[in-house]
Amino acid sequence: MGLRFEIVAEDKATGARAGLLHTPHGIVETPVFMPVGTAGTVKGMTQGQLEELGVQILLANTYHLYLRPGYETIRELGGLHRFMAWPHPTLTDSGGFQVLSLKSLGRVTEDGVWFKSHLDGSSHFLSPERAIEVQLALGADIIMTLDECVAYPASREAVQRAVKLTGRWARRAKEKLSALSSQPSASGGTKGWGLGTRETPLVADTQPPASEPQASKQSPITNHPSPIASPQQSTIDNRQLAIPAPSLFGIVQGGVDKDLRRESVEAVLELEFEGYALGGLSVGEPKAEMYEVAEYTAQLLPRDRPRYLMGVGTPEDLVECVARGIDMFDCVLPTRNARNGSAFTSQGKVIIKNTKYARDESALDPACECPVCRRYSRSYIRHLFVAGEMLGAILTTQHNLHFYVDRMRKIRQSLLFGAFAEFHSRARSQA
Amino acid sequence: MGLRFEIVAEDKATGARAGLLHTPHGIVETPVFMPVGTAGTVKGMTQGQLEELGVQILLANTYHLYLRPGYETIRELGGLHRFMAWPHPTLTDSGGFQVLSLKSLGRVTEDGVWFKSHLDGSSHFLSPERAIEVQLALGADIIMTLDECVAYPASREAVQRAVKLTGRWARRAKEKLSALSSQPSASGGTKGWGLGTRETPLVADTQPPASEPQASKQSPITNHPSPIASPQQSTIDNRQLAIPAPSLFGIVQGGVDKDLRRESVEAVLELEFEGYALGGLSVGEPKAEMYEVAEYTAQLLPRDRPRYLMGVGTPEDLVECVARGIDMFDCVLPTRNARNGSAFTSQGKVIIKNTKYARDESALDPACECPVCRRYSRSYIRHLFVAGEMLGAILTTQHNLHFYVDRMRKIRQSLLFGAFAEFHSRARSQA
Repeated sequence: MGLRFEIVAEDKATGARAGLLHTPHGIVETPVFMPVGTAGTVKGMTQGQLEELGVQILLANTYHLYLRPGYETIRELGGLHRFMAWPHPTLTDSGGFQVLSLKSLGRVTEDGVWFKSHLDGSSHFLSPERAIEVQLALGADIIMTLDECVAYPASREAVQRAVKLTGRWARRAKEKLSALSSQPSASGGTKGWGLGTRETPLVADTQPPASEPQASKQSPITNHPSPIASPQQSTIDNRQLAIPAPSLFGIVQGGVDKDLRRESVEAVLELEFEGYALGGLSVGEPKAEMYEVAEYTAQLLPRDRPRYLMGVGTPEDLVECVARGIDMFDCVLPTRNARNGSAFTSQGKVIIKNTKYARDESALDPACECPVCRRYSRSYIRHLFVAGEMLGAILTTQHNLHFYVDRMRKIRQSLLFGAFAEFHSRARSQA
Repeated sequence: MGLRFEIVAEDKATGARAGLLHTPHGIVETPVFMPVGTAGTVKGMTQGQLEELGVQILLANTYHLYLRPGYETIRELGGLHRFMAWPHPTLTDSGGFQVLSLKSLGRVTEDGVWFKSHLDGSSHFLSPERAIEVQLALGADIIMTLDECVAYPASREAVQRAVKLTGRWARRAKEKLSALSSQPSASGGTKGWGLGTRETPLVADTQPPASEPQASKQSPITNHPSPIASPQQSTIDNRQLAIPAPSLFGIVQGGVDKDLRRESVEAVLELEFEGYALGGLSVGEPKAEMYEVAEYTAQLLPRDRPRYLMGVGTPEDLVECVARGIDMFDCVLPTRNARNGSAFTSQGKVIIKNTKYARDESALDPACECPVCRRYSRSYIRHLFVAGEMLGAILTTQHNLHFYVDRMRKIRQSLLFGAFAEFHSRARSQA
């Protein structure tokens, strides 16, 4: 286990916990919310602004980066941290969720997923092995196995099939990572500009292994026609690196069916991942079911490993799911809503384009102490949205991310102080 | 004269000077470049980022703010400084340039300019008097007279007519401001949020005077149908204010014709403005003519008043026109070019979308020390532009503004050190 996870406080009544996740790029305090940096940027935010907000770990989407600028490019540029100039922890998803959520673009086979690029329609293939290779090239601290996520509602058969396939894919992913990690050398860019003093995360040997599934060989990476460079062909400086392999998380599927969730948990636990993610939730099921399944699944997972609830959620979800034993979250809600002019506040949502804010001199959230609320008025931010000015989305994104990060800080603080029950019940009464 | 302008250093050979411009919202070091905040925002920049870059004064466009959110709204919200949360010096143009540069939308009469909104086609009328009223409502530190700017090339008759009309309008503007300034009370919003500790700039009595030209009465402000509020009707707190009136600058026209420039200078000098602007340059004439006319005009203007060259220019123009006695500049070039992916650098322009930057790990400008060049690579910024991510425009804008502000700082420093001639010749050899 390369990923050290310490539990520093725990709420006996609920099993909620505060922890420390030690990654190669720094320590993450859990429970944690990970902003989504889809294409290697949290839309509208500079990396400096994210640091100021106290963001500790970013999520980036393998699907988007694979298509543009391409994982080879990012590998040659020294990996995602250096490419993005974000020298702090990162996590990449496997790419499967995007492929499958763009329904018309994806087709699942035993070997993996065929999909078409939403950019140019070109065909691509993502196998469990290739998802590992691509993520290794990106170089995040935490990477995910390829899974099949089914929408809600789905037949029991469809969910069961996804559970079994996700289990087989998890094994192949684990084996692929083990095989690559045991190979003698890794190469990566270390040429120095900007963040040159940081170590470059593992960039694995990228020779396609002989065991690659047949289908994979038929899938030209049409956007990036150059062959995968061997270390010798690399255009940038190479040197032997002794960086720990990224931590691989396994994903539990099973929809809202507890038996299937248990089956999926057993399949991934057998493989011993460094952390466990709950997939296939917040995909349309009623909130009560989501909470129930999260709770049921979390208690089946080992206490000493981080638990990550993928794609969740609202500010209320964060509290409710920490109370069910979850440590990590990601969601586009704070950033996407911000770009649509919807601000999260202590008094609920503020739809800033609303005419009633035209002469409102108060802050987006009068109770908020973020840099946006300390400086700008609703009237000004409304004007920016009405006039189509970028700054409207920028300020609202900054505020919403502060709202999420601040909420997680307060949850964690309440756990450290042994006051989570109070925090939880207060949050419930305000929701 | 409310606007104190101190000359602190002067280059004997050229007449270039470094000064201090004392405004109600702080001191501006000249020569100065004013970024353009068209609709009350420098596109893509937070006010905090502008402060970090060392921006000392912002320009906002009366035309845009008049149409949206409306000058009454800004007046009621305590003026532009408070509305924008920019407690530092500001300058507004008269609105005439936008009206006339959107040719199909404007029609010039003796009384003023009829124009149609580019937003909804509604009809509006801008007279020299109304331009003053609107700018007083906005509350900038420095305001401009309405002028007629003719494009290049134009017949001598057209330029002469514009010179004479600009002169008559300058007199009407001056008289309007004097009339309003001598009225007993002014009202403005002072309700406190955010920047509440700052004084609110003058918001003049806005009762339409009986001397208003006939045409003006026929122009409903269709976007903002509510009647201009008297102090008693105002929806926000009012109190007597003792803030100095804004400083009004007169504008010199005359195209590239020296006789007409002289005629225009004489007309505005007679009226004794607090500063003088050179309009009608950088509108298509050859660069050498622009420099020659700027130099000729500047030496006709009083030494002890600031000289503002409107709408100029390139980094080279800044040095060349300081060398011709100019103190103030504004231009959309650094911000607009940035949004199109064109960066100003010590090595010339970098068109960042160019394929050759796809794996370029160097900074936009390796010689630059701005926050963008210290952190991000060309490859990353190119990716942002190719992917259509906001952060591309944000980072390039930040860099370009730094480039302009830094250039002005260096010009000023060379003047203070008595080394302007060297700076000037070095800049010429690099251009």
